[in-house]
Amino acid sequence: MKKILGIDPGFATIGFGLIGAERMNVQMLRYGAITTPAGMEFPQRLKQIYDDMTELLEILKPDEISVEELFFNTNITTGIQVAHGRGVILLACTNMGVPIYEYTPLQVKQAVAGYGRADKRQVMEMTRRLLHLDKIPRPDDAADGLALALCHARSSTSLLANLQPGH
Amino acid sequence: MKKILGIDPGFATIGFGLIGAERMNVQMLRYGAITTPAGMEFPQRLKQIYDDMTELLEILKPDEISVEELFFNTNITTGIQVAHGRGVILLACTNMGVPIYEYTPLQVKQAVAGYGRADKRQVMEMTRRLLHLDKIPRPDDAADGLALALCHARSSTSLLANLQPGH
Repeated sequence: MKKILGIDPGFATIGFGLIGAERMNVQMLRYGAITTPAGMEFPQRLKQIYDDMTELLEILKPDEISVEELFFNTNITTGIQVAHGRGVILLACTNMGVPIYEYTPLQVKQAVAGYGRADKRQVMEMTRRLLHLDKIPRPDDAADGLALALCHARSSTSLLANLQPGH
Repeated sequence: MKKILGIDPGFATIGFGLIGAERMNVQMLRYGAITTPAGMEFPQRLKQIYDDMTELLEILKPDEISVEELFFNTNITTGIQVAHGRGVILLACTNMGVPIYEYTPLQVKQAVAGYGRADKRQVMEMTRRLLHLDKIPRPDDAADGLALALCHARSSTSLLANLQPGH
C-alpha cells in the first residue's frame, strides 16, 4: 500500500490528508491542518510552516506528495502570501526526499468528482464517499488535502480508474 | 561597523550585495548572484536557492538583511515563481537568525536616488557613486542587492541622512 499525502497549500491554514492507496482501493489514514497565527511576523510564520511541515512528514512518512498548483482568481495579496508559503512547503517535501506531484483545481475536480465543473461541496461530498467517511472532514482545508491525495491516487492509476465498481 | 546584506529576491536569479555601514559611511564588501538552471525541476530549484542562500549567510555573516517587497507589475506567472523563491529566501534568513527588513521599490528609489520617480539606471548610478565604485556592478540583480542594502543603511539612520557632505 502506498501512502499519499495531499496538501492544500496556504499561509494562514495548510490542509493535509493522508490516504493509503492500492490500485483502486483507498482508505483515509489521517487528516488535519497546520495553522499560523495572524499576529506573528511574516518570516516567522514561514519558519513555522516549514518546521511543522517537516515534523508532519517525519510522522506520516508519505511515499508521495500531491499538492495543488496555485490559481490566482481572488486576492492578489493573499495569492502572494500563499505562494511564499507554498515555496517553503515544497522545500520541506524536497528536503525529506518525497516525490512531489502537482495538480490544478480542475484536475482535482475531474479526478474526484468526475467532471470539471463540480463545485467545492460536490468535491468534498465525493471525497467523503470515496473514503467511506461518515462526515466531510473539517476544516475545509483538510478535506481539500484529502481530495488532492485522492486525485493523485486516481491519476496515477489511470488505466484502473476506468474499472469502477459496477463494471 | 554593521554588515547589511541586500537581497533582490527571485527564482532564476537572486542578486545580493553586502555593505559595511557606520552612520553615513558605507562601503561595498561583496556582491553577486545566485542562479538556478531553467531545466531543473521547480522544487529542486527552490532547494538550491535555500541551500545557496544558507551557505551565503554562513560566509557573509550579515548583521541585518534588507529584502525587496514583491511588486506585481509584470507577469503574474513570473510573480508567483518569485514569491515561492522569496519564501525560501526569507526562511533561510530566519533560520540563521538574521533580522529582516523589507522595502518597497519606491522606498529604495527614495532612499538611494533621492526621489521616487528615479528610473532603474539612476538608482544604479547613485548606488555606484555612494559606494565609490568604478563601474555599476553586474549583473543588474547584484546592483539591485547593493541598492537594497544602501536603502536600509540610509533608512535606519534617518536623522543623519539629512547631513549630506557639503552641508
